[in-house]
Amino acid sequence: MSQHRRRPRNNQISVEAVAGNGLLDRRALLGRGLAFAGAMTTGATVFAAAAEPLVEPPWSLEPGAAIVPYEVRSRFEKSVARTLSNPNFRPGAQGARTPHHLLNGTITPSGLHFVVSWGGVPDIDPDEHRLVIHGLVKRPLIFTLDALGRYPMVSRMTFLECGGNSAPLFSPEPIQDSVQALHGLASCAEWTGVKLSTLLEETGIDSTAKWFIAEGADAPHLSRSVPLKTTLDDAMIALYQNGERLMPANGYPMRLLLPGFEGNMNVKYLRRIKLVDAPSMSFWESKIYTQLLPNGKAYQFYFLQEVKSFITRPSPGLTLKEPGLYEISGIAFSGTGRISRVMISADGGQSWGEAALQEPVLSKAFTRFHMPWRWDSSPATLQSRAWDEAGNVQPTRAQFVAERGELKQIPPVAAVLNQHCNCIPSWAVDEKGEDQHVYA
Amino acid sequence: MSQHRRRPRNNQISVEAVAGNGLLDRRALLGRGLAFAGAMTTGATVFAAAAEPLVEPPWSLEPGAAIVPYEVRSRFEKSVARTLSNPNFRPGAQGARTPHHLLNGTITPSGLHFVVSWGGVPDIDPDEHRLVIHGLVKRPLIFTLDALGRYPMVSRMTFLECGGNSAPLFSPEPIQDSVQALHGLASCAEWTGVKLSTLLEETGIDSTAKWFIAEGADAPHLSRSVPLKTTLDDAMIALYQNGERLMPANGYPMRLLLPGFEGNMNVKYLRRIKLVDAPSMSFWESKIYTQLLPNGKAYQFYFLQEVKSFITRPSPGLTLKEPGLYEISGIAFSGTGRISRVMISADGGQSWGEAALQEPVLSKAFTRFHMPWRWDSSPATLQSRAWDEAGNVQPTRAQFVAERGELKQIPPVAAVLNQHCNCIPSWAVDEKGEDQHVYA
Repeated sequence: MSQHRRRPRNNQISVEAVAGNGLLDRRALLGRGLAFAGAMTTGATVFAAAAEPLVEPPWSLEPGAAIVPYEVRSRFEKSVARTLSNPNFRPGAQGARTPHHLLNGTITPSGLHFVVSWGGVPDIDPDEHRLVIHGLVKRPLIFTLDALGRYPMVSRMTFLECGGNSAPLFSPEPIQDSVQALHGLASCAEWTGVKLSTLLEETGIDSTAKWFIAEGADAPHLSRSVPLKTTLDDAMIALYQNGERLMPANGYPMRLLLPGFEGNMNVKYLRRIKLVDAPSMSFWESKIYTQLLPNGKAYQFYFLQEVKSFITRPSPGLTLKEPGLYEISGIAFSGTGRISRVMISADGGQSWGEAALQEPVLSKAFTRFHMPWRWDSSPATLQSRAWDEAGNVQPTRAQFVAERGELKQIPPVAAVLNQHCNCIPSWAVDEKGEDQHVYA
Repeated sequence: MSQHRRRPRNNQISVEAVAGNGLLDRRALLGRGLAFAGAMTTGATVFAAAAEPLVEPPWSLEPGAAIVPYEVRSRFEKSVARTLSNPNFRPGAQGARTPHHLLNGTITPSGLHFVVSWGGVPDIDPDEHRLVIHGLVKRPLIFTLDALGRYPMVSRMTFLECGGNSAPLFSPEPIQDSVQALHGLASCAEWTGVKLSTLLEETGIDSTAKWFIAEGADAPHLSRSVPLKTTLDDAMIALYQNGERLMPANGYPMRLLLPGFEGNMNVKYLRRIKLVDAPSMSFWESKIYTQLLPNGKAYQFYFLQEVKSFITRPSPGLTLKEPGLYEISGIAFSGTGRISRVMISADGGQSWGEAALQEPVLSKAFTRFHMPWRWDSSPATLQSRAWDEAGNVQPTRAQFVAERGELKQIPPVAAVLNQHCNCIPSWAVDEKGEDQHVYA
């Protein structure tokens, strides 16, 4: 680039601090003239002093490529990828985590939606797949994908989260890794499909039915018992993910969707809904997705993903290159309903300021929060804390482990043994602008 | 499949008709026990008479494939693709149309978002790309992608539509093709980026500035003049599309987003915002995106995409296989704001019933509408008509062409010569359940 560059002077910033260590009023960024560029490194934002400040790079001088029927990302985006917990595909679970620190907005691109898989991705022919609804119904029915496609559809933006998401926070020492490694087993999409209640109107429900067993068509036949009454308002047979058919590892051609319920209950490759009078106590729910509490009791049939938030920017791996103004941004969600409030601290929880929530704030969906912050290069500890509309609040880590225990080390398949951690995460920013995972 | 099959009896359906030719109350599908399966062909939905109604297909008996860092669609979904208006990439425009009849929900998958391109897809290195804001500003600035990434972000679900979408309806005879061919140059996504107003707070605005020129970095350097005052609330430099970076053909690494404004003004590969006191009268706006009206005047600087709707199911190519209950489903949107109402007719506009709108209904975004319909195999003509919150209503085709003219034939690049057609489209269903495009 040939244009003249010089370091811009710092502009005056007169915005009221709302909490310690530089947190500014959340409305400060909306029309108050904060000078971001004025605080930036030469080369990032520069004065354009020349009359014609643009040069002609190669792509401005030659025709581009032809449009294709189904487009893929730029070759420059390859590093935006899911990380794999079992890349060599050894027997057992495979996890793929969403790179929250490299994304923005509230929708997770379908190719980057998190996955936990016990048997790999089946190659299901949608014309051959069947869904049966039977058991304690008046008229058992078998549905093809085509048949389901004729039913009334609903669409719903909702998050899914593995019960084992954030499990590294069970460790007594904070594990040094990215927000993707720590919280990447949660994602959000627009799901479209047929409500289970619509299909059960056709089969009828026997009065003795209290639960249903959902079972997948892939080899592990993962099955979970789901309470019937509390899920009928929400449960959906999802046929579309972000407008198109489900991604193969997310249940193609159909999955159960139970907004707010832990990920594994949203059974993928759904082939069976069996109405029953009691839970089946399957291997999956009595062994895999059950956990021993410090008091010796089994923590079982915990369905809801509780209120949670984490800061995605800044976060470990994203270094602040200089002092100045930044936007703190992150994600909040609750399996109970809408997020009502997110508070941010830059001093490890001593003082808090309220973040702005991106509209629309939808029930059981990712909500993006924003907060302006002036970092003066002194150490800071960033935290976010979320509330939902039912009044639930994200606990501190100390509160959380007092109730749920700690583990000396996190086993390879953290998802299985450490469940439902929703405590407040903390990033410590040092004088160099580098973020570390800490307990604060 | 080994299960016993027999044709189920028809259930009684007692739901009030709200308009002619079988349109049912929009609430009928929510808890009224309509028997869809009861009206279905044997084989689509069948009774499950056997104790164990499921067989084990191959994918239930063997491990699946390993999870990958960035997932792609099932091999069975290849036919869900954009159609290309200039597949051999001859000089001139290329169009890629969204397959609305094969999608559902409101989000268009990024790989299937419509494209109109004049110079192909440039292969832009995001680290080398620059955006300059200059002209009638107090302090011209140049931004890298990294610099923009530090600014406060906003997210917005919004549609984009080419001004030439639906141009085939200028033809005096209805062109027989799919909803993709007729209305596929419109799509909807969650866009995240920096508001233009935020950046203009940094550059300052000279009091003589009334317009800005937006220019792209690809070879054609498409540029459009945009009125400054009316766009400052909404205009965004979009950096993310559905959570990840923009697709290459949709402007990677950044585009102007002007919610509600015709597609080409949402300049892709944005490299220049130049504040000026009058429109530039560029080739693009005085020749390409200007149209002669029947009264001899130029139709120019028409910015807003007006209120529109079309039915995606049923639609040409999607045959109704038997009489019975169906859900009519489609998309409505308006560049002015929220959709307030969609009415459906099954008798060519003689009588109308109100469709259900999928929540949340967002301003300048796709809104999915639904309506239950009992088709008795007699001919029917389906229409949808949308209103927006400002009271604008979709015109009939007769009203529309009386004002805007007809063309004897649609030229190859319809997008250029026939603009902003938003009239009511009509599908005629014949006794065989096949849909035809008609004028009604």
